[in-house]
Amino acid sequence: MVRLLPTIHSPADLKKLTPKELDQLAVEVREELCQLAATRTAHFASNLGVVELTLALHTSFDFGRDRLIWDTGHQVYAHKMVTGRFDRFQTMRAKGGLMGYPNPAESEYDMLMTGHAGCSVSTALGLRCGDDQLRPDDRRYVVAVVGDGAFSCGTIFEAMNNAGGLKKNLLVVLNDNKMSICPRVGGLAESLDRLRMATFYTGLKTEVQKMLARMPVIGDPVERFISQMKDAIKAGLLGGMLFENLGFRYIGPVDGHNIRQLQKYFAMVRQFQGPVLLHVVTEKGHGFQPAAEDPTTFHSPAPFHRENGTVVPIRKSATQPSFTQRVRDAVLDRMRADPTVAIITAAMCQGTMLEPIREELQNRFFDVGICESHAVAFAAGLAKVGMRPIVDIYSTFMQRAYDQIFQEVALQNLPVVLLLDRAGLVGPDGPTHHGAFDLTYLRPLPNMTVLAPGDAADVGPMVAWALQHDGPVAIRYPKAPAETVDRPIAPVELGRAETIRWGADGVLIACGATLATCDEAVRRLAADGIDFGLINARFVKPLDTATLLRAVADAPRTVIVEEGALMGGFGSAVLESASLAGVDAGRVTRLGIPDQFIEHGARAELLAQLGLDAQSIAETCRNEIATTCQTTADPRSNPHAAQ
Amino acid sequence: MVRLLPTIHSPADLKKLTPKELDQLAVEVREELCQLAATRTAHFASNLGVVELTLALHTSFDFGRDRLIWDTGHQVYAHKMVTGRFDRFQTMRAKGGLMGYPNPAESEYDMLMTGHAGCSVSTALGLRCGDDQLRPDDRRYVVAVVGDGAFSCGTIFEAMNNAGGLKKNLLVVLNDNKMSICPRVGGLAESLDRLRMATFYTGLKTEVQKMLARMPVIGDPVERFISQMKDAIKAGLLGGMLFENLGFRYIGPVDGHNIRQLQKYFAMVRQFQGPVLLHVVTEKGHGFQPAAEDPTTFHSPAPFHRENGTVVPIRKSATQPSFTQRVRDAVLDRMRADPTVAIITAAMCQGTMLEPIREELQNRFFDVGICESHAVAFAAGLAKVGMRPIVDIYSTFMQRAYDQIFQEVALQNLPVVLLLDRAGLVGPDGPTHHGAFDLTYLRPLPNMTVLAPGDAADVGPMVAWALQHDGPVAIRYPKAPAETVDRPIAPVELGRAETIRWGADGVLIACGATLATCDEAVRRLAADGIDFGLINARFVKPLDTATLLRAVADAPRTVIVEEGALMGGFGSAVLESASLAGVDAGRVTRLGIPDQFIEHGARAELLAQLGLDAQSIAETCRNEIATTCQTTADPRSNPHAAQ
Repeated sequence: MVRLLPTIHSPADLKKLTPKELDQLAVEVREELCQLAATRTAHFASNLGVVELTLALHTSFDFGRDRLIWDTGHQVYAHKMVTGRFDRFQTMRAKGGLMGYPNPAESEYDMLMTGHAGCSVSTALGLRCGDDQLRPDDRRYVVAVVGDGAFSCGTIFEAMNNAGGLKKNLLVVLNDNKMSICPRVGGLAESLDRLRMATFYTGLKTEVQKMLARMPVIGDPVERFISQMKDAIKAGLLGGMLFENLGFRYIGPVDGHNIRQLQKYFAMVRQFQGPVLLHVVTEKGHGFQPAAEDPTTFHSPAPFHRENGTVVPIRKSATQPSFTQRVRDAVLDRMRADPTVAIITAAMCQGTMLEPIREELQNRFFDVGICESHAVAFAAGLAKVGMRPIVDIYSTFMQRAYDQIFQEVALQNLPVVLLLDRAGLVGPDGPTHHGAFDLTYLRPLPNMTVLAPGDAADVGPMVAWALQHDGPVAIRYPKAPAETVDRPIAPVELGRAETIRWGADGVLIACGATLATCDEAVRRLAADGIDFGLINARFVKPLDTATLLRAVADAPRTVIVEEGALMGGFGSAVLESASLAGVDAGRVTRLGIPDQFIEHGARAELLAQLGLDAQSIAETCRNEIATTCQTTADPRSNPHAAQ
Repeated sequence: MVRLLPTIHSPADLKKLTPKELDQLAVEVREELCQLAATRTAHFASNLGVVELTLALHTSFDFGRDRLIWDTGHQVYAHKMVTGRFDRFQTMRAKGGLMGYPNPAESEYDMLMTGHAGCSVSTALGLRCGDDQLRPDDRRYVVAVVGDGAFSCGTIFEAMNNAGGLKKNLLVVLNDNKMSICPRVGGLAESLDRLRMATFYTGLKTEVQKMLARMPVIGDPVERFISQMKDAIKAGLLGGMLFENLGFRYIGPVDGHNIRQLQKYFAMVRQFQGPVLLHVVTEKGHGFQPAAEDPTTFHSPAPFHRENGTVVPIRKSATQPSFTQRVRDAVLDRMRADPTVAIITAAMCQGTMLEPIREELQNRFFDVGICESHAVAFAAGLAKVGMRPIVDIYSTFMQRAYDQIFQEVALQNLPVVLLLDRAGLVGPDGPTHHGAFDLTYLRPLPNMTVLAPGDAADVGPMVAWALQHDGPVAIRYPKAPAETVDRPIAPVELGRAETIRWGADGVLIACGATLATCDEAVRRLAADGIDFGLINARFVKPLDTATLLRAVADAPRTVIVEEGALMGGFGSAVLESASLAGVDAGRVTRLGIPDQFIEHGARAELLAQLGLDAQSIAETCRNEIATTCQTTADPRSNPHAAQ
């Protein structure tokens, strides 16, 4: 059989295919997805689930003109294959290769980079209103594809409410696969289950509709009652009253793996006036049995290949436990010891490795769905009545709870512990997922204490410390193995840094997990006869000004290293303290994430690119020694110190 | 008639009153509200609307044990009067007096400070889950009172979805007055209107319920159909299917001005298992005709007294136009000239003075409801197809859109203009409403340009500049009259500050509207023979490093003044630049908002308290001259420079 995928250069080519060829193409797309999964970790089960939906969308609309937004863009692999990027598909998520999310820089078929779920209906409504204003006669359809998991995110609701009020033409495709990454949760999820399970009801529907159409509707009270009754039956029986109450017309559920049926529905709904929600039922992992059976494991699996229908991991990673795992173990330990400790995740039970806690301590484990704002406010309520809640969310997603951290937690000075996983550079997920800003957005909030463990040894004591501190605490750590830096370990004390060693030629101040890298840099320098000291900052707020300013004031040069935005970050806090204390900060160099969005790539590659690997740090220290210090220093001598 | 209010020292006293006395008390509460409105600006119409609801709540529950959360706490005036604070009631919103929002420091009856709408159901669910964990046998009821306006906020939906899934006992009172501050908007609002307007339906309901109860429900498909039908009729006809779909039991609508009826319903719903939404219909401004007729104007009116049933303003303020008004005028001007400019407000049309734009250019005016996250993502969609959207939101509320500013705007580098009104100290609204953090949370985002107009003359050019800049721009300004600083006005250019004059003794760098205050300080210093220069920073990002570092390097002393958090703010940006350029920042003093939440009070009082009024600034400059500079300076000499 001739392969079709290499012949598809744009959606126009798709439209030439017969229904049977489209089915064949779906098989080829899945084959391609499996091939990628054999070479590197990538989003897998979700992409297997939307193959038919993607092909139906691109054969029913013209997204060169029409507008398509993928909510949570990690499901765009098939979309990328059929929009001119098949030849580069196997570069997916590699540095310089295709981004694992929509990327307008790659293709006109990608409208927006979407890595955080829940905003697609908002942007789609914006596209619709903008088109209506600027090109009113130009009938472009606007479609947003939203997973049912994202429906736990309030922004979807906000946008649907707005769209329903404005009565704009807009198609929201609810891709219902019963999952976020983990099984989805909440009252709405149960309602959707009821809709899906009403197997007999699709047949009945036509009959009921015919009957309803025959019922008279005129003006007097009895007739108004009948009319109401009619609406009630229609909406209640035909489902989706939630969406109808927001002003949407609800259609579905529809089989999401039947291209012909999907095309038929798309043709129908584009005739409607006003916003429409089309409820499409898909299966995560569809077409690859192991993934369909365990979509959580196959959300973003380690590389594997297939042998006789079973899955064989290509290599077992042998690195030490990650910060994520160390933190989870420390939390589990504390939760076993203290019945007031509870933990909250926002649909990231797997990524944060909390499954063992979910299994063992289910009464104190809360997966609230993709709703970080609610997660933090909910934690505030728990804390108010005496619990010790922990909110475990990726650094970049915690941005969605910024106002709740401000009002519900910091302002009330409640003892909520925020765990910011994936702080710093995450690697292949790229700019939507890097956690660059947590230190800058948390540090200015009064009452907030901010910690960053330097290594594996810091994790347990910091978690324990946070859970006994009388106020909000944030702990941030990267997506990385937790190394251990050899040293006599000082206990964690409020606002105390750890001076690991002093150096005659200068001092490195490491913020968080840059400690191991700095330690390696110190050893490299020592090998060259350069004596650099090392400080483990531990606290970003409050700062250990005594220790840090001693380095700034006394060391011949101080290099501060943080895996976070340089603007307003940890190094900036040191400069503020120096200014306040009248200490000359002229010999301070700050390394961190510059004022730009960092593309995807392996974490090690990105660290090297930003001058944050051991070799670059050592190089910076050498340069600082070579340069005449103080006011005559030329900042251009170190390209990475720029912001 | 003996006044009852002075005899109410706690809700226990309320429970001793007869129904008739409770009605009298409601009249007295309203009289007290009118008296407050005669002395100062305070929330008025919303408080008039919840008098009966408040009395019914406190006579039906025991909130010494039970838990009560007021979503958007500005409706707690009656609650404060009957929870032991009547004697201090007329100090409301004055410095040192009662806070205009719930305040746990004032009373055990106030659970959390709530100034930002939409998080009450989240915190209430947290209280519920915490109580279940810590005191499972202790039946405390948890109640959240939520305005219908706040139902446009997605967090409410997130929390209801979570509560519905957990099936926790929880009462959400939907206080439906058809309003946010302005008339509320969206598809849900129309659904609520339909529920309210079904006047004949309450009578029918009982009959329908009886009929439904007689219908048999057993096991075969036909019977299952009848059962479904029954549920459909019940939910669709009896309303509130949206809430039912989230797992809530819906009861209502109920007359919110009938204390007896409310008490009856509260008694009923506390017997239910699982979460309940009680839909209460109230009238904003109830009991005071002018406020009921125009609740928007009477949301937070200027002081007035009553004469023969009409309203007489006590004094007409004669100050110059505010920044808000100047910005509105500039926006209207640009919108008239450019049909691609649109403006979005999040239910704050009145506070941002946008009514004239709403009236004149309704196609390009969008009030999306209380949903800042959606507002910003929606703007990104508009920008993507070629519009020039402006999002006009208070600084403190913009925190709710932080992640959308990150992902939908900055990451995509879309030309969205963010107007941050109420930046800095807002005065009587206090800590939930001060806009202290905008510079710190916006500055680190790549692609973001941040401006702060120095005075009235900067406003128009900055708005015009922002609308032609190819990328995201934020403009922040305080709730204050826009003064004009006498000078030859330089055009607004990217990253250019304005050197108004140089000074032999030092230079003041003013960020934003501190310019006029700094100008006054310069004049006071000149009167003492001290020669201070003045720079209008204009751009917070990118910084005019050439101009600002010249001052830092060359001036005998530099005092930086900003009305924002010192940590990570504008002054911190100057220190970063100095460090990068190798310029000694030892003679820099930074004035701004220290690392604490600032209580309510008149704006002028708060500025003086923080050393940000002209007198204090001049004093700081004098102290800096008196002190030997550089590294021997003692930061304690200026208490306001501390953070």
